[in-house]
Amino acid sequence: MASASDNTELITAHSLREMGLAVLSKLGVPEADALDTIDSLIDADLRGVPSHGMRRLLWYAQRLQDRGTNPRPDLRLLAQTPGTALLDGDHGLGQVASKRAMEIAITKASTTGVGVVTVRNSHHFGACAYWAELALPHDMIGLCTTNGGVVMAPWGGTTPLLSNDPIGVAVPAGKELPIVLDVATSVVAGGKLDIAASKGENIPLGWALNSHGLPTTDPLEGRKGVLLPVGGHKGYGLTVIFEALAALISGARFGCDVISPSNTSRPMDIGHYFQAISVSAFSSVELFKSRVDALIRQLKSSTLAPGTDRIFLPGEKEFEARERHLKSGVPMPGEVLEQLRILTTRLGLSTK
Amino acid sequence: MASASDNTELITAHSLREMGLAVLSKLGVPEADALDTIDSLIDADLRGVPSHGMRRLLWYAQRLQDRGTNPRPDLRLLAQTPGTALLDGDHGLGQVASKRAMEIAITKASTTGVGVVTVRNSHHFGACAYWAELALPHDMIGLCTTNGGVVMAPWGGTTPLLSNDPIGVAVPAGKELPIVLDVATSVVAGGKLDIAASKGENIPLGWALNSHGLPTTDPLEGRKGVLLPVGGHKGYGLTVIFEALAALISGARFGCDVISPSNTSRPMDIGHYFQAISVSAFSSVELFKSRVDALIRQLKSSTLAPGTDRIFLPGEKEFEARERHLKSGVPMPGEVLEQLRILTTRLGLSTK
Repeated sequence: MASASDNTELITAHSLREMGLAVLSKLGVPEADALDTIDSLIDADLRGVPSHGMRRLLWYAQRLQDRGTNPRPDLRLLAQTPGTALLDGDHGLGQVASKRAMEIAITKASTTGVGVVTVRNSHHFGACAYWAELALPHDMIGLCTTNGGVVMAPWGGTTPLLSNDPIGVAVPAGKELPIVLDVATSVVAGGKLDIAASKGENIPLGWALNSHGLPTTDPLEGRKGVLLPVGGHKGYGLTVIFEALAALISGARFGCDVISPSNTSRPMDIGHYFQAISVSAFSSVELFKSRVDALIRQLKSSTLAPGTDRIFLPGEKEFEARERHLKSGVPMPGEVLEQLRILTTRLGLSTK
Repeated sequence: MASASDNTELITAHSLREMGLAVLSKLGVPEADALDTIDSLIDADLRGVPSHGMRRLLWYAQRLQDRGTNPRPDLRLLAQTPGTALLDGDHGLGQVASKRAMEIAITKASTTGVGVVTVRNSHHFGACAYWAELALPHDMIGLCTTNGGVVMAPWGGTTPLLSNDPIGVAVPAGKELPIVLDVATSVVAGGKLDIAASKGENIPLGWALNSHGLPTTDPLEGRKGVLLPVGGHKGYGLTVIFEALAALISGARFGCDVISPSNTSRPMDIGHYFQAISVSAFSSVELFKSRVDALIRQLKSSTLAPGTDRIFLPGEKEFEARERHLKSGVPMPGEVLEQLRILTTRLGLSTK
């Protein structure tokens, strides 16, 4: 096993997958569902987004053990039109409903040009980028958003009433890398505060308010208070809209009625929104991709600001990290690996 | 005629409409198209967003006189599927193509649950909110974005290569006001720099860079340089995505190939994206609206941060401004009125 900086170890994606599948299988999750779930988590680690990576398996496992998450959901299509569907996630892992929902959106888009599928009664689905990217092999633009645990206040307020709903969008390119945006509506994702806390580091002012509504540099205090929306009223406005798309329209829990993620014995019942847009409904696919490439090259031709080495497109750093980590192994913090090993031992699984 | 603070005059929406219709009619725009255009501009003034209001008529008129904008476009449907369409705006006023495109999106959504219409060969369409709101009487969620004149650099760069593509979304509510978001992907819209300049005011650091790529507080210098994206890489990422949706997929000019808005003799050939989502494809409309109302009331229940009087939902300030201005008259800066009067005199129209 190779070693990286500080206490991080480099693990192959293969052995992480084996470990993850064993854990979920032991907790009653069917193999195909376990594979979708673990692949979405490992993909986040590969892309250099550990806040949505295998560290989340610890939480997922606790929820499955405490029956807050249903290991064998019976996904049901509650409504559909030629271009839309509403799926009930039956309190299962978010990835299980998300895989099905995005596939339906893609199928709809192949005949009606655009497909929208919303989901209710679901859980955390990992990173948005993973689901948006499913559209790419179909020459479609993929888009998704979700609500989640309550971490933000409305702009001008201090009470945690909203999730920092993220958006993911993937746009197919030709010779260049696809454009893949995945951003939360807070200045930073809550996972970044957790990582700072686990490293004993401070956070910059402007990321969060403490439970008294005052600016804080302590990540643990910030987690007890609220994350601040990106761009003030703009990030607040976007999260309200994403809440409408993901939760209000699907019949999921919304706003402060979402069950706390740390309440591991009760379903969170959050909602998701998935959309696929077929490029061929508007353009020849080849022409479109050449235009995407041309925009990418235009942007890369920019004069650089002082201190900048290079212009990146959304998702480009993550594609490069994925390629690097597929060769080197996935960097996993020692304490996360330790907790994963304790979990596998507790579940009576052999540790590799 | 009532008077307001400084040199602002309060004009009735009716007399602004008469003036606007006379100008566009004289410049060869058919009456129905002129009405759509003027109504979108007056609506922005009514909503307290003068950057997208009647001051734009001066620019529209110059473009029509210089033949950069086609007064009588022949809108053509270039492609369609059950859920999507592509419309050619034939270099006309943006409002003319936008009205038609949003209507088609709504019609599509009424049978396929969701409708997406993109537009090429178009111009400035006023404020996004106006088009998104067209979905509301149909119990649909409306959404739109557009590209435009080049005002932003990619994140990490200093060359103007992108528009600060805005997004507008309207969500129908029950007893509460609809939620209407309309935000640009820059920290502030370029129009705010123009207004600061016209008042001889400075702008805060963080709004713009000058033509040397350095921070500036001079709005005119900022207009020669680049606007800064909201939330750094997040606003940059969003504008790249909106560029893909509005311009890349429609076949419009994109990135730095958009013709400068100040080149009044050449079509800008920008693109738009319109989407309508039918609430009834997912939920009973009544239930959905009661859930929107419940979220609004949750948010308004927040403890207030120091210095805040009240929690606002996106669009709420603008609805209140509209109601106020419909009674009081529309506030119009003296210099804009003066220029509009010079224009009407030049065109040989009687000034009222």
